[in-house]
Amino acid sequence: MAHKHGHVRDRIQFANAEDKQEFSKYPTKAGRRSLSRSISQSSTDSYSSAASYTDSSDDETSPRDKTQVNSQGSSDFCVKNIKQAEFGRREIEIAEQDMSALMSLRKRAQGEKPLAGAKVVGCTHITAQTAVLIETLVALGAQCRWTACNIYSTQNEVAAALAETGVSVFAWKGESEDDFWWCIDRCVNAAGWQANMILDDGGDLTHWVYKKYPSVFKKVRGIVEESVTGVHRLYQLSKAGKLCVPAMNVNDSVTKQKFDNLYCCRESILDGLKRTTDIMFGGKQVVVCGYGEVGKGCCAALKALGAIVCITEIDPICALQACMDGFRVVKLSEVIRQMDVVITCTGNKNVVSREQLDRMKNGCIVCNMGHSNTEIDVASLRSPELTWERVRSQVDHIIWPDGKRVILLAEGRLLNLSCSTVPTFVLSITATTQALALIELFNAPEGRYKQDVYLLPKKMDEYVASLHLPNFDAHLTELSDEQAKYMGLHKNGPFKPNYYRY
Amino acid sequence: MAHKHGHVRDRIQFANAEDKQEFSKYPTKAGRRSLSRSISQSSTDSYSSAASYTDSSDDETSPRDKTQVNSQGSSDFCVKNIKQAEFGRREIEIAEQDMSALMSLRKRAQGEKPLAGAKVVGCTHITAQTAVLIETLVALGAQCRWTACNIYSTQNEVAAALAETGVSVFAWKGESEDDFWWCIDRCVNAAGWQANMILDDGGDLTHWVYKKYPSVFKKVRGIVEESVTGVHRLYQLSKAGKLCVPAMNVNDSVTKQKFDNLYCCRESILDGLKRTTDIMFGGKQVVVCGYGEVGKGCCAALKALGAIVCITEIDPICALQACMDGFRVVKLSEVIRQMDVVITCTGNKNVVSREQLDRMKNGCIVCNMGHSNTEIDVASLRSPELTWERVRSQVDHIIWPDGKRVILLAEGRLLNLSCSTVPTFVLSITATTQALALIELFNAPEGRYKQDVYLLPKKMDEYVASLHLPNFDAHLTELSDEQAKYMGLHKNGPFKPNYYRY
Amino acid sequence: MAHKHGHVRDRIQFANAEDKQEFSKYPTKAGRRSLSRSISQSSTDSYSSAASYTDSSDDETSPRDKTQVNSQGSSDFCVKNIKQAEFGRREIEIAEQDMSALMSLRKRAQGEKPLAGAKVVGCTHITAQTAVLIETLVALGAQCRWTACNIYSTQNEVAAALAETGVSVFAWKGESEDDFWWCIDRCVNAAGWQANMILDDGGDLTHWVYKKYPSVFKKVRGIVEESVTGVHRLYQLSKAGKLCVPAMNVNDSVTKQKFDNLYCCRESILDGLKRTTDIMFGGKQVVVCGYGEVGKGCCAALKALGAIVCITEIDPICALQACMDGFRVVKLSEVIRQMDVVITCTGNKNVVSREQLDRMKNGCIVCNMGHSNTEIDVASLRSPELTWERVRSQVDHIIWPDGKRVILLAEGRLLNLSCSTVPTFVLSITATTQALALIELFNAPEGRYKQDVYLLPKKMDEYVASLHLPNFDAHLTELSDEQAKYMGLHKNGPFKPNYYRY
Amino acid sequence: MAHKHGHVRDRIQFANAEDKQEFSKYPTKAGRRSLSRSISQSSTDSYSSAASYTDSSDDETSPRDKTQVNSQGSSDFCVKNIKQAEFGRREIEIAEQDMSALMSLRKRAQGEKPLAGAKVVGCTHITAQTAVLIETLVALGAQCRWTACNIYSTQNEVAAALAETGVSVFAWKGESEDDFWWCIDRCVNAAGWQANMILDDGGDLTHWVYKKYPSVFKKVRGIVEESVTGVHRLYQLSKAGKLCVPAMNVNDSVTKQKFDNLYCCRESILDGLKRTTDIMFGGKQVVVCGYGEVGKGCCAALKALGAIVCITEIDPICALQACMDGFRVVKLSEVIRQMDVVITCTGNKNVVSREQLDRMKNGCIVCNMGHSNTEIDVASLRSPELTWERVRSQVDHIIWPDGKRVILLAEGRLLNLSCSTVPTFVLSITATTQALALIELFNAPEGRYKQDVYLLPKKMDEYVASLHLPNFDAHLTELSDEQAKYMGLHKNGPFKPNYYRY
Repeated sequence: MAHKHGHVRDRIQFANAEDKQEFSKYPTKAGRRSLSRSISQSSTDSYSSAASYTDSSDDETSPRDKTQVNSQGSSDFCVKNIKQAEFGRREIEIAEQDMSALMSLRKRAQGEKPLAGAKVVGCTHITAQTAVLIETLVALGAQCRWTACNIYSTQNEVAAALAETGVSVFAWKGESEDDFWWCIDRCVNAAGWQANMILDDGGDLTHWVYKKYPSVFKKVRGIVEESVTGVHRLYQLSKAGKLCVPAMNVNDSVTKQKFDNLYCCRESILDGLKRTTDIMFGGKQVVVCGYGEVGKGCCAALKALGAIVCITEIDPICALQACMDGFRVVKLSEVIRQMDVVITCTGNKNVVSREQLDRMKNGCIVCNMGHSNTEIDVASLRSPELTWERVRSQVDHIIWPDGKRVILLAEGRLLNLSCSTVPTFVLSITATTQALALIELFNAPEGRYKQDVYLLPKKMDEYVASLHLPNFDAHLTELSDEQAKYMGLHKNGPFKPNYYRY
Repeated sequence: MAHKHGHVRDRIQFANAEDKQEFSKYPTKAGRRSLSRSISQSSTDSYSSAASYTDSSDDETSPRDKTQVNSQGSSDFCVKNIKQAEFGRREIEIAEQDMSALMSLRKRAQGEKPLAGAKVVGCTHITAQTAVLIETLVALGAQCRWTACNIYSTQNEVAAALAETGVSVFAWKGESEDDFWWCIDRCVNAAGWQANMILDDGGDLTHWVYKKYPSVFKKVRGIVEESVTGVHRLYQLSKAGKLCVPAMNVNDSVTKQKFDNLYCCRESILDGLKRTTDIMFGGKQVVVCGYGEVGKGCCAALKALGAIVCITEIDPICALQACMDGFRVVKLSEVIRQMDVVITCTGNKNVVSREQLDRMKNGCIVCNMGHSNTEIDVASLRSPELTWERVRSQVDHIIWPDGKRVILLAEGRLLNLSCSTVPTFVLSITATTQALALIELFNAPEGRYKQDVYLLPKKMDEYVASLHLPNFDAHLTELSDEQAKYMGLHKNGPFKPNYYRY
Repeated sequence: MAHKHGHVRDRIQFANAEDKQEFSKYPTKAGRRSLSRSISQSSTDSYSSAASYTDSSDDETSPRDKTQVNSQGSSDFCVKNIKQAEFGRREIEIAEQDMSALMSLRKRAQGEKPLAGAKVVGCTHITAQTAVLIETLVALGAQCRWTACNIYSTQNEVAAALAETGVSVFAWKGESEDDFWWCIDRCVNAAGWQANMILDDGGDLTHWVYKKYPSVFKKVRGIVEESVTGVHRLYQLSKAGKLCVPAMNVNDSVTKQKFDNLYCCRESILDGLKRTTDIMFGGKQVVVCGYGEVGKGCCAALKALGAIVCITEIDPICALQACMDGFRVVKLSEVIRQMDVVITCTGNKNVVSREQLDRMKNGCIVCNMGHSNTEIDVASLRSPELTWERVRSQVDHIIWPDGKRVILLAEGRLLNLSCSTVPTFVLSITATTQALALIELFNAPEGRYKQDVYLLPKKMDEYVASLHLPNFDAHLTELSDEQAKYMGLHKNGPFKPNYYRY
Repeated sequence: MAHKHGHVRDRIQFANAEDKQEFSKYPTKAGRRSLSRSISQSSTDSYSSAASYTDSSDDETSPRDKTQVNSQGSSDFCVKNIKQAEFGRREIEIAEQDMSALMSLRKRAQGEKPLAGAKVVGCTHITAQTAVLIETLVALGAQCRWTACNIYSTQNEVAAALAETGVSVFAWKGESEDDFWWCIDRCVNAAGWQANMILDDGGDLTHWVYKKYPSVFKKVRGIVEESVTGVHRLYQLSKAGKLCVPAMNVNDSVTKQKFDNLYCCRESILDGLKRTTDIMFGGKQVVVCGYGEVGKGCCAALKALGAIVCITEIDPICALQACMDGFRVVKLSEVIRQMDVVITCTGNKNVVSREQLDRMKNGCIVCNMGHSNTEIDVASLRSPELTWERVRSQVDHIIWPDGKRVILLAEGRLLNLSCSTVPTFVLSITATTQALALIELFNAPEGRYKQDVYLLPKKMDEYVASLHLPNFDAHLTELSDEQAKYMGLHKNGPFKPNYYRY
C-alpha cells in the first residue's frame, strides 16, 4: 500500500550531521526526529481497514517461536499461521480481479520472462494487492523474499498464502520493533541467496542493507522506492555521494501522483467522514485548509454532495484556482466559528491551533487528510480542562468545560489511512509502476542508469496508464503517420514534454 | 489580446535552411509555410467581437494619407480618427474596472517609477485592455511607441484615445499588409528615440528589428513575448545562437496558461456554441477530441450543463484522467454517427476527416477549439458535390447531396476567438504578466539574464496571481515563522517547486 | 414562443367589478391595471433575438395599405412583404430539423387527419417555430387563420412564407395597437369561415371573440391557451360562470413547465449574462433571489461554471432545498455589499430596493429572470442624482455621484427574453403540447369536457415527452404484462399519479 | 426510523376478501401475502447499522422472564437490561445535538404544554433518534407508552434509558414474533390508562387496536402514521368506511419525501457501495434503473464522483428529465454487458432478470435502492449451477460455472437500510413531522378533521422545514406587507399552492 499523498516519514538515523542539515532544508520535511527512535513512523501507523479480515485469534505464541512447514516442505518463511493460506488465496484472487493491469502484464511478458534471474528482496505492506504484485514478479521470472514495511498492516492469511506458494515471507500483524528488524534481516541474509534488486517502501530495508550488508550492493542492479520518505532518503544519499546503485523514484510518476492524491482523496474523504460520523454532507459548511491535489480532491467531492466549501491557502496561484473553481478563499479565523467540518490538507504544522479549536462551534468535526499528524495541534487538546470521550473507534469527542464538543477523527492522523479504504485500483497503479520499474532497472543496458535517483521514464508512465485503460473499456486513438509527423511525435509516445502539467 | 491556448502561428520566413529543419522537428509546429507569404497568420485572423464597437464609417481615406494632430499638438501617431478619442477613453475606463491588478500595480509602483528610462516599443492587439497595459507602463515611467499585431483587431477609438494622451500609436482596423509593416517601421524608426525594451505578440516586431535595425539590439535590455509562435521563434533564434538579448517567455507562466486554456475555454465553449447556433446543451451528445487543458475546460462546462460528453485521446495518461473525470474514452469512428456536436482540441491535423464528416448525422455541429484551423479537414468540404450555405456570420451549413446538413462554425478556425469574447479578467492576467516581465528585465542586475529565453520567475508568477485575488475578495493565509521554517519556505514564496503540477 | 416561466401579464379589461376583486386575490397577480390600457403587456414586450433575421427595410408603407397576392392568387392575408416568402421558407425548414416531435406527429397522424374539419383561429408569436406548428395543424387536416400575440415579435419573412402556402396570416413586426386589434379581427371575422377551435397565447384573441363575436362560441369546441395570463383569465371566466366552452390549460403541463423554467433558465442565464457583459463566471459572487424552478435553474448553471452562489428565500421548504443543494441561504442585506451579480427570480416586487442598489459595490450587475419587470425597483433609479449611460443594447450603467457604477440589464425586464435566445427544442415542447391539446379537444366525445378549464391529460403529457425522446436517442423500457400488473399500471401509461412531483 | 422511499410492506391480514381485491389494485402493492404470515415484513427487516452499539451479551434470558425496576421504583416496562440506561442516555444526548428542531420545539412549546392530557401509544423503531422524539412529546405534556415496530432494530440501551426516565417501553433487540405482539399488547392494554393518540410506523399497532381493543378508538383523537404500508392500510380502511378516527399521513409531506428519497439516497448510495465493496467510483459504468426521486439522488451522487451513468425508464417524462440532466436513457439489455454496477430504483419486480444477470460481466455489482426485495430476481440465482460465496457481511459473490462472479449486495434488499446509515438529520425531519402532526390532531377543534386520512397542512410542512433551517445557519427573508399583498400571500405562509412541484 502506498503512502498516500506524500506524507513524509521521518527518516531513521543513518546519516551524519551534514546530512541532517541538508535534510532540514527539505521543503516537505516533517520535523527533526530524536536519535533514539529506531523505527520509522510509517512502520507503526495504524490501519483500520486493510487488515480487516485478519483473525484476532487468541494464539499468542510469537511466529518466531513456531515451526511451520508449507505443503511443499519448505520452512523458509515466518508467518502467523500457514493454515490460513487457503483463506488468503481467496483474498488474492478477489484482488486479482481488480488488478487486471498486473494480470495483463503477466500475460504479455510471461513468454520472455523479463525478470528471469532477478532476485528481489522486498519490503512493503503485505496485503492481497501486494501479493498480486509479488506473484506477478514471480510469474515474470523473479525469485522473491519479502517482509512488511509496517508492523500492523500485514494481512496474516495473505502472508500465509504467499508462503504456501513458496515465497519466503517474513511478516505478521502486530510485530514488535525487534520483530520488524528481525524479519528484514531474515529476508536479506539468506543462505545461498543474494538479492540483486530491492523493492522498498519507506527505506527501512534499504537502510538495513546499507548498515549491515553493504557488500550486497555490489550485485544489486537497482532500488525501486515508492514512498516520499524513502525517496527523500535516496536523494540525501545521492547528494552525499553515497548512493552506490541506480534508484527509481516511483513515487513521483504522474499516474501514481494523480491517483494517490487527487482521485484517491476525492473518493476517500466522503468515505472517511461517513464511516466515522454518519454525517449528512448536504448543506454542511466545510473549510478545507490547503488547495493542492489533496485539497482539490476533497473539495470536489464535498461540493458535489452539497456541502458549502471554503478554503484557506498560502499560495496565491492555488488560491486563484480555488476562486475559479468556485470556492471562497478565507482565513481560517474568519470562518472558524461557523464551520461544521474542518479538514487539513497542507503538509504543514499547527494549521489548526488550539485557539481555533477553542472557537469552533459545538459539534464541529475536525480531521486531517494531509501528510502527517502535525496539522491539527492535537497535543494542545490533551490538557486537564478538556475531557476526551471515545465514542467510536477513531472518533473522540473533546469536551470543553461549557459542554461544547469538538469531534476529532483519528486523533489527527490521516483520515483516509485510518478510517476508509483505498480502492484496489489505486493500489494497482502503484504496483504496476513498481513492476515496470523493476523490469526497466533489471534489463537496462549498462550505463543507462548511473548511481543516481531517476524518475520512471515518461513512456513507461504512459504504459502504466495504458494498462489500466481496459478497466474502463477506454479506447485510445492512434496517431496516423502523417499526424505523428505533424506533431513531431513517435506514434507510441511519449506524447507530452516532461514539464507538461496534466 | 492573447493568442489563446497556444495556437502556433506559422513563422515569417527569416531563417535559413538549417533553421527550417530545426523548426520542422518542433512538436507544436503548424506546418510549413510558403516563402511567398510575408505576414504572419495570426496577423490576419479575424475577430468577431473584440472590435465590435468600432465604427464602420464610410470614411475610406487611408489614415496614412491624413494629417491628424492631438490636443497637445503632437502628430507622432497614425490612427483612423483622433476625434474618436473620447469614446475610446470611456472604453478604457470600463476596462480599467476589470483590470484592478494593473491599477494596483500602478499604485504600488508609481512612487518608485520602476520603468523610468524605459523606452518600450510594443506590438500587440490594440484594444481597451492593452491600452490599460500601455498606460500602466507609462505611469510606471516608460515611454511607449505602439503598433498592432493584427490587421483586423484594432479598436480605432482606443487607438485614438492613446494617441490623444501622447502615446505614439500606429494602428487602425483593416490595415493592408503594406500598412502593417509600415506601422511597425514607424514605431521602431523614430527620430531621436531608440527603444531599449521590446514587447511583442507574435514575433513580427522582433523580426522586423532583426531584419532592418539589428543595431537597435545593442541598447535593448530584453524582449517580452507572449505568443506561442513568437516564443517558438525566440527559441529557434536561441538555438541558432542568434538571440542577442535576453527574452522572457510569458506565454508559459502557470497563471497565464491556466487562464488561457482551462478556465477560458470552460467559459467560452458554451458562449461560442450558443451565440452561433442557439443550441440547447441538455442531453446533447458531444465528442471532444483531446483531453488536454483546452479539452478539460470544454468537457467540464458541457457536462455541467447536461451534455453527455465522450472524448478521444492519443495519450493514455490524459485518457485515464478522462475516465476518472467521468467521460467515456472512445475512437471517433465508434461514435461519430450519434454525435450532436464534435469539438476538436488537439493541436493536431485532420482529426476530423472527410470520411467522418460524411458519417455525421443531419444537424451535427462541428467546431474547433484547438490551436489552428487544421484540425477539421475543412478543405475536403470544398468539393463540388457539397453545397455551402452561410446561415449566419461564422455559421455555414454544408449540405450533402441527400440533404444532410453539417453545421460548421468559423470555417474550422478557433471558435472562441471567432465567435465568443474573452473575459477582461483573462486579459488582465496576461497584461499583468507582461508588465512584470518588462520591469524584471529592465531592472535586472547585469548578468542575471543572458542571451537566452527565460520563464517568468516563479515568485513573479505568484505575484501576478496575488494581484488578482482582490477581484475575488480572497484572503491569503500567511505562514508563521515557525511554519515557514517547518516547510523550508520563505514566508513570501515561492511556495512550490518548479516541477509542481498545479 | 411561450411566455417563459409563468410571468403574468395583466389582463385586458373585459370583466366587471366583481371580477376585478377576484383578480386581486390571485396569488400571482401582477398588479392592478388602469382601465385605459387596452393591449396586454406581453403584446408589447420587446424581443431581441427572435426576430433577428428580420429585415429593417425602409419600406414604411403600412401592410394594411398594400395589396399583395400570393402565387396561388390569394390575397386573404396581410404581411409585410410576400416576396420574402422564400427566405422565410428556409427559416421554417431549419426550425423543422429541431422540431422532430411535430414532424413525427405529422407522419403518425397524417393518414387519419385528426383535425379534418377543424377551423383553427390562432394568436401566437409568429416565428419559424410557430410556423412549424401551424403547418402541422394544416397537415393534420385543419384550416388555419392566424395573427400575432405580440406587436414586435413577428418574423416578417416567416409570415410571408405562411401566407404564400395559403395560411391566412395577419401579422407584421412593429404593429400599432390599432393594427394589433385589426389583425385579430381579420382573423376571426372572415366571410364564409367560422372558427371551431381557438389557439391563444395571452388571451387577447379569446377576449376579442368574447367581446365582439360571442356567437362564435356556439360552434367552438374548445380553447387552447398556453400563457399564465391567458390561463388566469380563463379561470376567472370559469369562476364567474362565463366560460362557455371547454378550455385546455397547456401552460401547466409537467413537460412544458420543466422546460420553460428549470431547463430553459439553466441554459439562458449564462447566455444572457455573457452576451450583455462578457462576464467571467469563475469565482463570481452571485446572489439569486428566489429558489423556485427558475432560481434552481440559474443556480445550477452558475455554480457549475464556478460562481459562488447564495440565495434568498421566503419559503422554508425551498430554503431547505437550497441548503441541501449547497447554497447558503441569506438575507439580501447581509450580502449585498460583496456581490458581483444580483439575479431576481421571485415573481415578487421590489425584491431589490433602491436602498440595496445604493449599497452595491462598483461594477455589480443586476438583472431579472423572474416574471415581470417589478422585481428590481428600476423606477427608483430614475432620479436626478444618478446618471444613466447606455453602453450596449440592453446594458445600462447607472452611475452614482461618487462614480460607482451598477450595471443594469434589460432595464429590469426578463433577461432571457431580452438578451438570450430560447432553444427551438423548448419551443417544440410547447408547440407539440398545443397540437395535442387541439386534437384532444376537437375529437373528444361529447361530455368528456364541460365548460371548464382542464389540464392536459397526464397520458398526453407523457406522449409529448415521448415524442421528444428520439432527439436524444433515448430508448424507453416497456413494462412486461407481469410488471404492469404488479404495479397496477397500464403498459402505455399514465405512469404516475397526478400529484407526483417529478 | 422511517421506511425510506416508500417501500410498501405487505399488510397483515386484517381485512376481508373485498379489501384484498381493492388492495391488489393498488399501484405500489408489493404482492399478495399468504394468510398464515402474521407479522409485517418491515417488522423483520434486518438493520446493519442502527443497532451497532448494542451489546451482543450472552445473557440469553428473555426480558419477559426478568423482573426489572428503574430507579424511581417503577417496573411498568420491559427492556433487555435497565442497567444500560446510562450508556443509552449518552446516545440520546448525542442524537439531541443533531435534532435541534425537536429541541427547539421543546423550548417554544414547553410553556403551553400543547400535549398536556395526551396519552400517546407509539410503535416505532426504538433508537436514540426516536427517543428524542418520545422525550419531546413528554416535555410537551404527553404520557407515552411505547413499543418497537421491528424485531431487530431496537437499541437496547436506549430502551433502557427511556424506561429509566419513566416511559413505559416494551421492546428489545431480537424479539420473537410472539414477543412482538406481546409488547404491543402491553402498551395498549394498561391498567388505568387509555390511549387517546396513536403514533404508528407500519400499521401493526393500529391493526392490533382494531382487532383487539376497538373500543379504544372511542377516545382516540387521531392516528399519525409515517410508513407507506401503514398509510396504505389507512386509505384502505377509509375506502372501506372502517376508519373511525382522523388519521394523518405524514409519509407524504413534502419535506419528508424529499429527504427520505432524493437527498437521503444521494448520500447513502455512495456509502452503501463503499462500505460493502470499497469500489472506486471514478470511471465506473453504472446503470440506474428508474429515474424517480430515488434514482435522481443516486445518479447525482454517482455522476458527481466521476461515474459514467445511464438510466432505464418506463415513464417518458422522467426519461426526458434524465436526458436533460445528462444521462443516456437506454434499455437494460443494450448496456448490461458493459456495466460495472447495476442499481434498481423502480419499485417494480424482476427489473433485473436472470437472463440479464447471466449477461453481466465478471465483477459486476448488483444492488437495490428501491422499495422492496423484488426488483432483482434473486430467487433465480438460487439454482444449483451457481455457487454463492459470502465474502463479507451483506456481500455475496454469485459464481457462474465459467468462473464469472456477480457481486450481490444485501441479497437484493434495500442497500441503504442494510449497508449504510441514515443521517440523524433525515430522521429529525420525520420525527418533527410526527410531533407536529400529533399536536395538530390533538388540538384541532372539533370538526376540522373527520374520519379520513389527511396530509399534514402545508403550513405545518413549511414549519418543519423552518425548524431545520438553523442547522444550516440559513436566514429566511420575510415578505413586507406590500409584497405579501402583491403576491396574495400571508406573511407567514403557506407560500405555495398545494400542487406546487418543488
